[in-house]
Amino acid sequence: MGDQRTREEVFFRKLEELFKPQSVAVVGASDDFGKLGYHVMKSLLEGGFAGRVYPVNPRAREIWGLGAYPSVDKIPEEVDLAVVAIPAPLVPEVMEACGRKGVKGVVLITAGFREAEDPRGEELHRKVSEVASRWVLPIIGPNTFGFVNRTFGVNASFTPEFSLIRPGGIALVSQSGGFCHLSGFMAIKERVGMSKLVGIGNRLNVDFPEMVRLLAKDPETSVIALYIEGMERPRELLKAAQEVRGQKPILAYKAGRSEKGDSASRLHTGALAGDYRIWRGFLRQAGILEVQSTQELLDVAKAIEALPPLKGPKIAVLSSQAGPGLIASDWVDAEGLELARFSASTQKRIDDLLPPSTMRTNPVDTGPAWYNPRAIVGILEAVLQDEAVDGVLFLNMFASANLKLASEVRDYLKEKKALSKPVIGCFSAPPGLWEEIREVDPMEGFVILPTPERAARAMGYLWRWYRSRRWQAEN
Amino acid sequence: MGDQRTREEVFFRKLEELFKPQSVAVVGASDDFGKLGYHVMKSLLEGGFAGRVYPVNPRAREIWGLGAYPSVDKIPEEVDLAVVAIPAPLVPEVMEACGRKGVKGVVLITAGFREAEDPRGEELHRKVSEVASRWVLPIIGPNTFGFVNRTFGVNASFTPEFSLIRPGGIALVSQSGGFCHLSGFMAIKERVGMSKLVGIGNRLNVDFPEMVRLLAKDPETSVIALYIEGMERPRELLKAAQEVRGQKPILAYKAGRSEKGDSASRLHTGALAGDYRIWRGFLRQAGILEVQSTQELLDVAKAIEALPPLKGPKIAVLSSQAGPGLIASDWVDAEGLELARFSASTQKRIDDLLPPSTMRTNPVDTGPAWYNPRAIVGILEAVLQDEAVDGVLFLNMFASANLKLASEVRDYLKEKKALSKPVIGCFSAPPGLWEEIREVDPMEGFVILPTPERAARAMGYLWRWYRSRRWQAEN
Repeated sequence: MGDQRTREEVFFRKLEELFKPQSVAVVGASDDFGKLGYHVMKSLLEGGFAGRVYPVNPRAREIWGLGAYPSVDKIPEEVDLAVVAIPAPLVPEVMEACGRKGVKGVVLITAGFREAEDPRGEELHRKVSEVASRWVLPIIGPNTFGFVNRTFGVNASFTPEFSLIRPGGIALVSQSGGFCHLSGFMAIKERVGMSKLVGIGNRLNVDFPEMVRLLAKDPETSVIALYIEGMERPRELLKAAQEVRGQKPILAYKAGRSEKGDSASRLHTGALAGDYRIWRGFLRQAGILEVQSTQELLDVAKAIEALPPLKGPKIAVLSSQAGPGLIASDWVDAEGLELARFSASTQKRIDDLLPPSTMRTNPVDTGPAWYNPRAIVGILEAVLQDEAVDGVLFLNMFASANLKLASEVRDYLKEKKALSKPVIGCFSAPPGLWEEIREVDPMEGFVILPTPERAARAMGYLWRWYRSRRWQAEN
Repeated sequence: MGDQRTREEVFFRKLEELFKPQSVAVVGASDDFGKLGYHVMKSLLEGGFAGRVYPVNPRAREIWGLGAYPSVDKIPEEVDLAVVAIPAPLVPEVMEACGRKGVKGVVLITAGFREAEDPRGEELHRKVSEVASRWVLPIIGPNTFGFVNRTFGVNASFTPEFSLIRPGGIALVSQSGGFCHLSGFMAIKERVGMSKLVGIGNRLNVDFPEMVRLLAKDPETSVIALYIEGMERPRELLKAAQEVRGQKPILAYKAGRSEKGDSASRLHTGALAGDYRIWRGFLRQAGILEVQSTQELLDVAKAIEALPPLKGPKIAVLSSQAGPGLIASDWVDAEGLELARFSASTQKRIDDLLPPSTMRTNPVDTGPAWYNPRAIVGILEAVLQDEAVDGVLFLNMFASANLKLASEVRDYLKEKKALSKPVIGCFSAPPGLWEEIREVDPMEGFVILPTPERAARAMGYLWRWYRSRRWQAEN
């Protein structure tokens, strides 16, 4: 038992180091654009990695301008991480070399293991497992693109473009590399900041439970987001999730819901997806907040990371255009939130700031104050100070005619640096102006989401998350 | 009765001409950036308008470098359209001048009529109505940003940036200017092509029924999209919609669903939104396809415009990454569609094109053919030719390692020019590569939507639309 704990401790210490390597060997490194090893080299060398990179390839003396080694254990210095992109049959031997060399961990990009129809895949999987177990060697994969650690500055994947993701507090762990590409590129476009993006692929010995346990202690990660198809050890995920309950939010998007999807998932990663209803109950029990789409996973992660908790359901809707404010109000209702009833003094402040107009109660049509942007900012201030308001949806469509409003709102947010209650801005603007306004997204207490529906829905998730946390604290 | 018909005919002829003016007077034109008349001038002069522009302002001799006139009826040449952006109390007199001058129609940007709490607003509304009726003068507004006609090349709005919208076949008619800005800017980003974007504001005498009747005959419009808050003459919309049944699709997004939203709507545009359940039934009866969000209105309009009808529910899911393919399969199921069962010969062709791999039935994991992009294109060809397939979801995440696939797929689509069945591509790529791939979006038979969920959902709407059309034809 003592020995067992030591093994587990060793494994986790290595897993931690795997994500923060000082030196990386690329087994299968190549100068040939057609090989994954080419793109892994590109990711490492052009992704801001400060450590040493060792190409390993017995058929080359130099790769990407660096001296190549015939095998990992021929590298004269220490190697923390080996990224392996070679044909499957060669993998067990390389793993053995990694073990001998004292490598901390491996990213095993190679596919063709358990997920393949070929029975030799199963045999290879067994062999690699045995080596990994003997050397206590954590393996990300097989059948993965790798990972990127944006807060440490290492891109250990075959996708150099992942280095464009902004460093931030969200760690995304996914069973599908395709999902990481889908959401990673979306994160670049929508300014979602990530600490880590990890494709755990066929999860040889690093699965959701291990990643959740690791990320729970990761000071650079404040929100854990999971893309799950299926898994074999739900109890261990439950245990790992319960350990972080109330501390770090865990979000999950569960795919493989339909019967067809389920069988597709089994073939994809060798795991049964299982009955979706059972999954829903399981996620709830584990205190994991379930979302319903790729977009929601990013929206909610972004909102939860940047915003203070939504401590009640009472929302102020401030909109400089009535229509989007109306849509937001509809969705506030649909999300189980309420339109706040302002205190008399707040209402007085709003009335004083707005010209005689149409909608001064909630939703507030701030449109008539287009020419007095300070009034709009003043109304935001007023509702943030009102105890009857828990969160704010702040909607503004900017264009030529209200450019001054755009810069005033942006400057106000820049100056404030942090807002005390969650404010989701649904801002929209044409190209050119948009990039300028976007500067303030995200900041502490404020994020931008592009439609009233998405803004209100993310607010709804904030509320669900707060309630479930409160429920957990009380039970 | 004969006289009545003549009046109506005159009104509609003028309304048509209003949207295709040869000459525009801008009443309230200004060189002052702080005035809406400044931005209207900018829209007209920088938006590619080929006709004549006459600034009208009694306090200036020259505006935007053009000779200014003290009033509309002092302009020596014919004026087709007057865009009016002056204080409300001055409007009736200007309308009278427009009538005398023989202007075909007016865009009345000015707010402060019936929507204002002030009883003088009601009085002004009455006065303007009287003048408009006497001169048989169609009025877009009041309380509108105006309109843009992208296929004719006139931007008669205070938002010059609307000229960035691609010309296309979708006409969007909205009760809210804010909604037009929200969706117009989204259309720019997501390459949604529009014929017209019209803010009908407080709908003095041009309301949804008039616009639907006009657009039904508009050769440049193939899809009509409506953003509705509420209205007084649902029967006339029903009649207008039934006239185009089965010819041109009409989509609608109905806001003001919640009780609170309803009262906000009433204050915003002076119309009762009414019980949402009644609205749902009404839209169905009118053969109008209802969507559930801003995003869906654009996605579905874009898909319906570019794609041939989805004549059955059987969908092929081809994905070069298994995860997104799995998500698409889930959503195919949730949308009431089915995964097609390929014919034996199609399956044979697919098997021949793919290396020994994991998923070769539907969904097809085309991932193993990364290095053989022609195989992926070949599989698309094969399923398009299969009678057992009604539509295709084609998912590809492109990045450094599969650049060749990106260019091959793009070139294939470019060369084909048109696809015979609806294909929705869920393509994703990092900045740089994305712009290059996007070139092919939209084309006949093919559109790109950025997530598997949105792609599958749009496919679901295609199917609902086809079924409702078939139902209409049979009943």
